[in-house]
Amino acid sequence: MQVYKAPLNDMRFVLLDLLDAGQLAQLPGFEEATPDTITSILEEGAKLCENVLLPLNRSGDEHGCTYENGVVRTPPGFKDAYKAFVEAGWLAMSANPEHGGQGLPELVNFVFEEMVCSSNLAFGNYPLLSKGATALIEVHATPELKSRYVPRLIEGRWSGTMCLTEPQCGTDLGLIRTRAVPTDGGSYRITGTKIFITAGEHDLSENIIHLVLAKLPDAPSGTRGISLFLVPKFMPRADGSLGPRNGVTCAGIEKKMGIHASATCVLNFDEAEGWLIGEPHQGLKCMFTMMNAARLGVGLQGLGIGEAAYQSAVAYAKDRRQGRSLKGAAEPSASADPIIVHPDVRRMLLTQRALNEGARALGYFVALNLDIARKHPDAARREEADDFVQLMTPVVKAFFTDCGSLAANLAVQIHGGHGYIREHGIEQFVRDSRIPQLYEGTNGIQALDLVGRKLGQHNGRLLRRFFHPVTAFVEEHKGDERMAEFIEPLAKGLDRLRNASLTIAGRGLADPEEAGAAATEYLKLFALVAVGYMWARMAKLALAKNGGDNGFHATKLKTARFYMARLMPETSSLFAQLMAGKRTLMEMGADEF
Amino acid sequence: MQVYKAPLNDMRFVLLDLLDAGQLAQLPGFEEATPDTITSILEEGAKLCENVLLPLNRSGDEHGCTYENGVVRTPPGFKDAYKAFVEAGWLAMSANPEHGGQGLPELVNFVFEEMVCSSNLAFGNYPLLSKGATALIEVHATPELKSRYVPRLIEGRWSGTMCLTEPQCGTDLGLIRTRAVPTDGGSYRITGTKIFITAGEHDLSENIIHLVLAKLPDAPSGTRGISLFLVPKFMPRADGSLGPRNGVTCAGIEKKMGIHASATCVLNFDEAEGWLIGEPHQGLKCMFTMMNAARLGVGLQGLGIGEAAYQSAVAYAKDRRQGRSLKGAAEPSASADPIIVHPDVRRMLLTQRALNEGARALGYFVALNLDIARKHPDAARREEADDFVQLMTPVVKAFFTDCGSLAANLAVQIHGGHGYIREHGIEQFVRDSRIPQLYEGTNGIQALDLVGRKLGQHNGRLLRRFFHPVTAFVEEHKGDERMAEFIEPLAKGLDRLRNASLTIAGRGLADPEEAGAAATEYLKLFALVAVGYMWARMAKLALAKNGGDNGFHATKLKTARFYMARLMPETSSLFAQLMAGKRTLMEMGADEF
Repeated sequence: MQVYKAPLNDMRFVLLDLLDAGQLAQLPGFEEATPDTITSILEEGAKLCENVLLPLNRSGDEHGCTYENGVVRTPPGFKDAYKAFVEAGWLAMSANPEHGGQGLPELVNFVFEEMVCSSNLAFGNYPLLSKGATALIEVHATPELKSRYVPRLIEGRWSGTMCLTEPQCGTDLGLIRTRAVPTDGGSYRITGTKIFITAGEHDLSENIIHLVLAKLPDAPSGTRGISLFLVPKFMPRADGSLGPRNGVTCAGIEKKMGIHASATCVLNFDEAEGWLIGEPHQGLKCMFTMMNAARLGVGLQGLGIGEAAYQSAVAYAKDRRQGRSLKGAAEPSASADPIIVHPDVRRMLLTQRALNEGARALGYFVALNLDIARKHPDAARREEADDFVQLMTPVVKAFFTDCGSLAANLAVQIHGGHGYIREHGIEQFVRDSRIPQLYEGTNGIQALDLVGRKLGQHNGRLLRRFFHPVTAFVEEHKGDERMAEFIEPLAKGLDRLRNASLTIAGRGLADPEEAGAAATEYLKLFALVAVGYMWARMAKLALAKNGGDNGFHATKLKTARFYMARLMPETSSLFAQLMAGKRTLMEMGADEF
Repeated sequence: MQVYKAPLNDMRFVLLDLLDAGQLAQLPGFEEATPDTITSILEEGAKLCENVLLPLNRSGDEHGCTYENGVVRTPPGFKDAYKAFVEAGWLAMSANPEHGGQGLPELVNFVFEEMVCSSNLAFGNYPLLSKGATALIEVHATPELKSRYVPRLIEGRWSGTMCLTEPQCGTDLGLIRTRAVPTDGGSYRITGTKIFITAGEHDLSENIIHLVLAKLPDAPSGTRGISLFLVPKFMPRADGSLGPRNGVTCAGIEKKMGIHASATCVLNFDEAEGWLIGEPHQGLKCMFTMMNAARLGVGLQGLGIGEAAYQSAVAYAKDRRQGRSLKGAAEPSASADPIIVHPDVRRMLLTQRALNEGARALGYFVALNLDIARKHPDAARREEADDFVQLMTPVVKAFFTDCGSLAANLAVQIHGGHGYIREHGIEQFVRDSRIPQLYEGTNGIQALDLVGRKLGQHNGRLLRRFFHPVTAFVEEHKGDERMAEFIEPLAKGLDRLRNASLTIAGRGLADPEEAGAAATEYLKLFALVAVGYMWARMAKLALAKNGGDNGFHATKLKTARFYMARLMPETSSLFAQLMAGKRTLMEMGADEF
């Protein structure tokens, strides 16, 4: 059975104790984001997720979305849930107050989104896309477009999409064929076919605002010739009411492995009217504003589903009785012991748990920096924070989603054959968690972003934003005996990461294929060290609280120990693998495969 | 798209060049199993798999089996395919000639089964179960039961099942509640409910022969009180024709994550008439005859689907054009380069390939020993071979199925978003490959079998069957410069495995939880070294052929190099993880999870 209660204790620990999120209330515009306010917002959010979204997760998977004559219907219950979601203002939480938002920190929204992803990943895609579209319009569109579209998007009366992919192009957007032709009135006529458009058509909102990549007639070839357009499903009138239908129709929805309740649409644009966002031919740059935020959001999907998978597996492992403890019956009066007595079941549960809690700490740390980057009065602090976010975005996206998929698979494994039966809802986690590894740039693309762009950017400045504090932390605690079991593995991992970074930077300069050949292992090595750093910081804090002797903090220390002893060692093999270089990958001719 | 051509070249290389399967023709009863015969049988098998079974794989997944009023129907085309399968004698291939079998080596059947699993894993379950049931009846049943049932099973007119699991018991068969009461006529009346019964009801064969675990009225409690019964769906008359329906009915089929075309049934036994197989209360021992063979068969499912996933991914990677080679355009005249130019895509393809080819070599080596264990005139050789099979069975089952699932997931990753769409058939590999990790004993149970039983059995004799030849091989080639890149990583891995074995054996004696805490990592470490040994042997052979300079053998060397440089290093982290011991797993109280 799918089990989920928002881990509010752990969330508070990370937010308030570890990251001191209360500091955000010092930033201009975030005055209201006090610890108390944050806590009560999250408690409200937890109720919505547990009581409204979670119960629709299994049924949403079974029903899926349906398509008929251009109309897409979401599964039963989704319209009411969406209504509850937007009426409670969840879309407005971190949105700009100028357009009706509540102006709260992104961090608070981030925590809430984790809960949404745990409860109902497919549902979560609708607000996720709207938020991304809103952010993009706010940053890049004209004041007129902003005032016409943003308030409605924040209310949730309208929703948004990102239209990038076409049948012949996904990763390589230079191959886009959709065309935009200027009209006399300052707008454009957009024609082309887009595929894999999440929330491209559905029955949750009155209007759908598509952000579409297309090429102008005078576009240079390749990615430098792409422009961005806003194309509404219904043309809004000046008074905000809906006018006639625009020339965009849904030609079908995809049957997918999972996230059946999230509509994945084929959209045909047939001289649809649209408006340019940003400068001509600069569309990809604008879109990346949205993509980067979306990548962090997709990372959260991995964490969210990982948490739900963990909680569901724990419930089963405590309930299911098979066999006896290897040490002899733990509960002799019962017919068998619960399977949580077995070391291998615990190995799986602790793997899920240590990755979830570690990713949570890292993810929230990144989100905190997102807010600092936007609001801090000191430009140097803003730059520093933004560098860190830029650096960590591919790590969060790829590692968190890989961990989510791993956690889902471990949940199935703990359930044995019962995990394979649809009725129990566990295999759905595996199917749903598979897509975050693919969309918003496959995880291989994230790894290339890390080694190919972020590693060398500003002469390694981004990288130093990570290495300096981690190195300082290791140095600071080197003599601390109680911290030794955390610091030593972290220091080893950090050494490997440093060596790997230098090697890749060196080899990659001479031959970019060398960087590409190391990318995936490097990203994972990076992530294990980054999460290890968060675990070491959490261990320090847990030790400081009552000496870490009991309750929540004692458990935290045990989980930290598991991470260091059982997960951190993978840095050794990753290091060896990536140091092997490109030869083993590139020496085989394509025709030899 | 699902792509599969039986890799006959590689199969022949392993069978004839590496393993000298021609030696089997020297064994009594296998005189006909010459290299030429083996080759032409496999060529015929390949045609059936490619032309009949593969085209039904996707449609079988879409339609699935249907259930109505106790009747189960397989998807369209399955009846004809089954007819073609049994009429061509594939079920009879390695069956006993006394009952109409062809008496060919198990090894030949093993290779054929790999092809079946590549083409249509769900279909393959029907013959797999029949083969297992036939073997069990042949070894343990009375001559009368044998002559009544075995010929029909070999013909495929009847099929077989294994009925173990009940709602309250899977792994722990001591909890079985199904009862068997003796009748005056020497038979028994069986009553109880069995779940997860593969091929428990379907429309492919005239009759279904259930092998059912149940408890006699005087049964001692636990696993020592389980007996085994043969329970036919229809009661056969003395002349072999079908009599009345027996008291066994199908109450439903499960909706599953995958293998939709394989019927997973709930069976109700209501005073069904059955016959005892073997001694009373010795049923589990008899069932293990079947289970061990079935575990190897399930291991093959992992390999089979891994191969199909690889071939499908290669086809896509050569066809799909996105972006450019990191070194600059590889095909400047085309709009983009095929994605096989990218190091990270190659990393995924080579991971699949190196695991498949290595597992194939190891799997066939185990199957060769299966035949030697059965037919060799020298008792010492038989024992040696049987020890090796016993030792490797959990390794093959768990590692091959984990690799199959990994390969399927990599195929999706290579396909990007297109891999997530049902239409393309790639996500089916992920869903289908997930079950072999669970059934016939979860992979965690396999790991416990390895460390808890096989490791210490006969004072480590089983283990020596592996360590002695591998150590000798390493010693023999230590000075060989051309072999250094293969021998050095193998030697490192072997050292780690030896140390891990000694440590676990030592710690496990004092505390069985220590063995349990190391089990899964130990099995994987074992598997990587075992497959590494096969790769080193293949490299040696490839070097010997034309100096390994061109064609098939050159490619083999490149793949061997990839395995040693990129996959073998995982032994280092596995070693560190398992050496961490039980504390990190066991110190957390169950209520802390």
